[in-house]
Amino acid sequence: MTLPAGRSKALGMRFFSDNAAPVHPRVMAALAEVNVLDTAYDGDRWSKSLDARLSALFDTDVAVLWVPTGTAANCLALAALCPPHGGVVCHRDAHIQNDEGGAPEFYTHGAKLFLAEGEGAKLTPATIAAVLDGIVDDVHRVQPHAISITNATEYGRVYTPAEVAAIGALARERGLGLHMDGARFANAVAHLGCHPADVTWRAGVDALSFGFVKNGAMSAEALVFFDPAQRGATLYRRKRAGLLLSKGRYLAAQVLAMLDDDLWLDNARAANAQAQAIAAAAAGRLVHLVEANEVFLRATPDEAATLRAAGFDFYDWAPGEIRLVTAWDSRADEVARLAQAIAAL
Amino acid sequence: MTLPAGRSKALGMRFFSDNAAPVHPRVMAALAEVNVLDTAYDGDRWSKSLDARLSALFDTDVAVLWVPTGTAANCLALAALCPPHGGVVCHRDAHIQNDEGGAPEFYTHGAKLFLAEGEGAKLTPATIAAVLDGIVDDVHRVQPHAISITNATEYGRVYTPAEVAAIGALARERGLGLHMDGARFANAVAHLGCHPADVTWRAGVDALSFGFVKNGAMSAEALVFFDPAQRGATLYRRKRAGLLLSKGRYLAAQVLAMLDDDLWLDNARAANAQAQAIAAAAAGRLVHLVEANEVFLRATPDEAATLRAAGFDFYDWAPGEIRLVTAWDSRADEVARLAQAIAAL
Amino acid sequence: MTLPAGRSKALGMRFFSDNAAPVHPRVMAALAEVNVLDTAYDGDRWSKSLDARLSALFDTDVAVLWVPTGTAANCLALAALCPPHGGVVCHRDAHIQNDEGGAPEFYTHGAKLFLAEGEGAKLTPATIAAVLDGIVDDVHRVQPHAISITNATEYGRVYTPAEVAAIGALARERGLGLHMDGARFANAVAHLGCHPADVTWRAGVDALSFGFVKNGAMSAEALVFFDPAQRGATLYRRKRAGLLLSKGRYLAAQVLAMLDDDLWLDNARAANAQAQAIAAAAAGRLVHLVEANEVFLRATPDEAATLRAAGFDFYDWAPGEIRLVTAWDSRADEVARLAQAIAAL
Amino acid sequence: MTLPAGRSKALGMRFFSDNAAPVHPRVMAALAEVNVLDTAYDGDRWSKSLDARLSALFDTDVAVLWVPTGTAANCLALAALCPPHGGVVCHRDAHIQNDEGGAPEFYTHGAKLFLAEGEGAKLTPATIAAVLDGIVDDVHRVQPHAISITNATEYGRVYTPAEVAAIGALARERGLGLHMDGARFANAVAHLGCHPADVTWRAGVDALSFGFVKNGAMSAEALVFFDPAQRGATLYRRKRAGLLLSKGRYLAAQVLAMLDDDLWLDNARAANAQAQAIAAAAAGRLVHLVEANEVFLRATPDEAATLRAAGFDFYDWAPGEIRLVTAWDSRADEVARLAQAIAAL
Repeated sequence: MTLPAGRSKALGMRFFSDNAAPVHPRVMAALAEVNVLDTAYDGDRWSKSLDARLSALFDTDVAVLWVPTGTAANCLALAALCPPHGGVVCHRDAHIQNDEGGAPEFYTHGAKLFLAEGEGAKLTPATIAAVLDGIVDDVHRVQPHAISITNATEYGRVYTPAEVAAIGALARERGLGLHMDGARFANAVAHLGCHPADVTWRAGVDALSFGFVKNGAMSAEALVFFDPAQRGATLYRRKRAGLLLSKGRYLAAQVLAMLDDDLWLDNARAANAQAQAIAAAAAGRLVHLVEANEVFLRATPDEAATLRAAGFDFYDWAPGEIRLVTAWDSRADEVARLAQAIAAL
Repeated sequence: MTLPAGRSKALGMRFFSDNAAPVHPRVMAALAEVNVLDTAYDGDRWSKSLDARLSALFDTDVAVLWVPTGTAANCLALAALCPPHGGVVCHRDAHIQNDEGGAPEFYTHGAKLFLAEGEGAKLTPATIAAVLDGIVDDVHRVQPHAISITNATEYGRVYTPAEVAAIGALARERGLGLHMDGARFANAVAHLGCHPADVTWRAGVDALSFGFVKNGAMSAEALVFFDPAQRGATLYRRKRAGLLLSKGRYLAAQVLAMLDDDLWLDNARAANAQAQAIAAAAAGRLVHLVEANEVFLRATPDEAATLRAAGFDFYDWAPGEIRLVTAWDSRADEVARLAQAIAAL
Repeated sequence: MTLPAGRSKALGMRFFSDNAAPVHPRVMAALAEVNVLDTAYDGDRWSKSLDARLSALFDTDVAVLWVPTGTAANCLALAALCPPHGGVVCHRDAHIQNDEGGAPEFYTHGAKLFLAEGEGAKLTPATIAAVLDGIVDDVHRVQPHAISITNATEYGRVYTPAEVAAIGALARERGLGLHMDGARFANAVAHLGCHPADVTWRAGVDALSFGFVKNGAMSAEALVFFDPAQRGATLYRRKRAGLLLSKGRYLAAQVLAMLDDDLWLDNARAANAQAQAIAAAAAGRLVHLVEANEVFLRATPDEAATLRAAGFDFYDWAPGEIRLVTAWDSRADEVARLAQAIAAL
Repeated sequence: MTLPAGRSKALGMRFFSDNAAPVHPRVMAALAEVNVLDTAYDGDRWSKSLDARLSALFDTDVAVLWVPTGTAANCLALAALCPPHGGVVCHRDAHIQNDEGGAPEFYTHGAKLFLAEGEGAKLTPATIAAVLDGIVDDVHRVQPHAISITNATEYGRVYTPAEVAAIGALARERGLGLHMDGARFANAVAHLGCHPADVTWRAGVDALSFGFVKNGAMSAEALVFFDPAQRGATLYRRKRAGLLLSKGRYLAAQVLAMLDDDLWLDNARAANAQAQAIAAAAAGRLVHLVEANEVFLRATPDEAATLRAAGFDFYDWAPGEIRLVTAWDSRADEVARLAQAIAAL
């Protein structure tokens, strides 16, 4: 391929985000493996195998759709759980509220997000109930139809099975659906060491956005319905959103490769471990407990500048706060240098 | 990658659709080439180079967005050209009307498609005007805001620059935008032998869905705005639709590889040539003039069964009519056998 | 009230439309009667009595919502019967297709209208099935979820109970909802002389837009659900559409006054009778059989001009065709003069 | 009219809401006055006179549309000022956020409401800027396009011309539209004693929902655009929302009657005066300064019960807080008894 004119700027040691990491070699190999003529859309044998593979993983019958982005997975799930005139409770720092450009409103045709509180971007039954109890049950108020939680959260915190189950119980009690944004589900499960079922359907989750792109895939996420009946209309919504790629086998292959020999868990463990290494060097500066692959640190502008001058790239998150994200391919040597640099601040 | 349980059924010689063909090796190579850490979304150097590359190709300043499907490209274009309360004139057999699951209505928030006539799925100024003239200008009627044409059409017919220009003139006269669905734009240009500008912006086209997936790419199409000002809001709409992939460089790379050394034209010429070979053997059966890579034939159910028994796969299109589509990788030997089989019916 | 500056132009004898007629004195009296403090929205005793009154009329339990326009009634019904990704079969000349400014698409969030044929704007099981059978059952095609018919039709034709029942049977067989646009339901029932149940729920109709505005009311229509369970979400949709008027008792009162002593039928009979008087004078010119209160005549431009010169106002409908509409208050003397004028052409 | 079966429950002295009050006799008279045949929709002479009448009132050229509800007025205004992918800053207690059942999201096709703080439900440039400054300018965040303020606010507080002008200046500086929800605009102007222009267009307001229903009308509000160019698309949106009533003259007449001899101001002054009478008796209990026609009082459940036992009806607003609303027809004797009852608590 002809390179673009000009030179790419030299890239530093990047801790911006796991969603910029390269694609794992086994995923690339899987793309090559399916590079043969087959049925279009999701009629190919690889796409057709996803239900069985993920049903085996979750130890229950699930219905699975591949989609190219986490935003698409989240919003198709919300559209399945909430009508246009309803609303969804989520954390005020949730990705669906702040980072999806209004996609939840687009996909649900204008459902409202109700913003709830919680430390580390984790909702609790109490903070959810506080929102729900403030919503009078009449036609003048948008009524709640679902709850959406993120595991691991936007601040790298992890819900335990018990914590999810408590929210699941509230959801059932109030007649609400429960969605889990699992853009970093792998990191959460790797941290918990639990069975993936324990933190999802056994805890009351109805739909999971199972993320792979931040964890080594190229362009495939899996939307998992624990009630297979919810797939029907979602197939139409996916097509209607322009998300039914013609050559779906290249998405299915990514998911399958990530599942093979638990690559999804290995990659997440690797990323989590590097985050722990950073956290260990920055104990006094941690804004949030480090449980997955994100590290939020207190750092003055001068300190941030010092780290950048040393070749580390990352986001300023809030005044006096920076975010460092590790990925499946974070290099131990770079992380060690980063840890030293932080310790030396 | 672990193969799905069971065996894939033996695949025959497939003339179902070009959208099921494998990915061209040079596109696969490009994916490997960009498989390095870079900026997420469309901030990478490859994505950033698309404007320049396509401006050079079209000999004018264009604004380009990659998207993963042709449906997405079409519908983002329509959303840019038509407000929710407006309408778009298209052929009654247009892909946006019949094959996108209501995506135009989703993206435009309910704009109406006005269905016009025309031989071979080609609109003409007269058939468009017939629709427009039937729409009284008052608030009780949805008002037209744009025209959408497909080149090559759903029946493999090609608009010439003069034909597009005549429609472009009508669009200007009536104050309407003009969109071209170019899912098979390459096949059209390969047939015409013209400069791609001649059949687009020089003929009055405002937005082009420039298709690559049917022509050897994996999952990348280019939405090309000939008025770069239309990109602004579209960037927000693309994100809002869940179409802003995290790792955009893998889409940009596909487009760039297709443009390198005119691979897009070479692939289209190859597909068109195979279609001609079929057409030559089926002259008396042709439903539509064969100009691109689709061949529509009259064939009785028995004749269709005979062809299938000989190992050829294809769609029944209408009673007594079958559709055969060639692709960039159609094998001359298989096409020759198909041609013989047709001639022998 | 201070009159607007300037003079209203002298009004001729108007046969434009029944929707411009004045309000019946008994409706005006009802407005005065409810002009006391009561509960807002639909919590007043008059609004609350609508279910019982219309259940009695229809001889079955119905759920009723008042709305201020027929468009609102139609589109809330469609939204109850069809999801955003679905479609509704209607006649190509249906009001919902041509005269509601895209309201069906707005209320349904972009459902598609499938246009079917039929003489006098009447659908038949055959014309509906012709559309349905052309829709392949896959995600690329919008799938039908409902049928909408208009009784009396846009051309003043009336479906009999048997005709509706045949369509109702098809709807059940195909799993589709059935909506009746009854903007001129009163005129249809007056013509048929049947029980209103016979041409609605007993014939398979799920939802009826029961029109009063064209028949002597000011601003109230009744949306009638024959399955009361469909009211729930519709209450939210009505509010969300800005249609829940604060002082609902003034709408309920109109409906109640129209039902009292069968004013709705008396008014419709009056209008129908005047249309018959015109039709009798124009037998050779009738474009459609006159069954309700609309008369479509063949008339040259010169003939139309002659009628206008004589003081009659009406719409040109199509080249060589005019439309004359009678209303509850059409004056027999004016109609007689019109009949004479037509006969004299 | 036949009364509904059963008896209406005896109504107490109602201070629930001004939106349940009866219609002013002069408005009723105006309805009778227009009860003649005229052109349908908004083609009648009364509807056509609204622009001139309100242009005179506001001392500038305005474009006016009647609508039947304040929700409709608000949401058509928001749809004119904000695209589907944008957002609107409003107070977290704003009617558009809490009491319109998601209508803003319906009309704008999913725009997001950004919730800002402010005492008495009044926004300030500082609280608005705090929200705006937290919105990073990239495609992942919904971008603000407009600000909506309510005057008088949901707590009966009034923005002065200077306060609105400060917000208007911020709106201009940030390129945002400015909408005023004037459901109780009359009460605000009556309180301020200013020219209506001073608190609207001269202060930077682009669109005003000018409320009449809470102030003595039956079913008509005026949506006023200070930039007449914004009417064009709104006419289509109004029809598309099912809000274009067939007999618009009955809405226009209400607005005209309310403007005649400043009935709108007289009614508002009357309501405000009664609120002051209540406030004077409850000085130590006031939650909000009383400036319009709403009084929010601290009252224990026992105290509230005492008032109810004395025959007064009102809403519990928050724990330990009740809301009393006066209307154009509040009776001085009932208000005096209420004041005494409050003083005696």
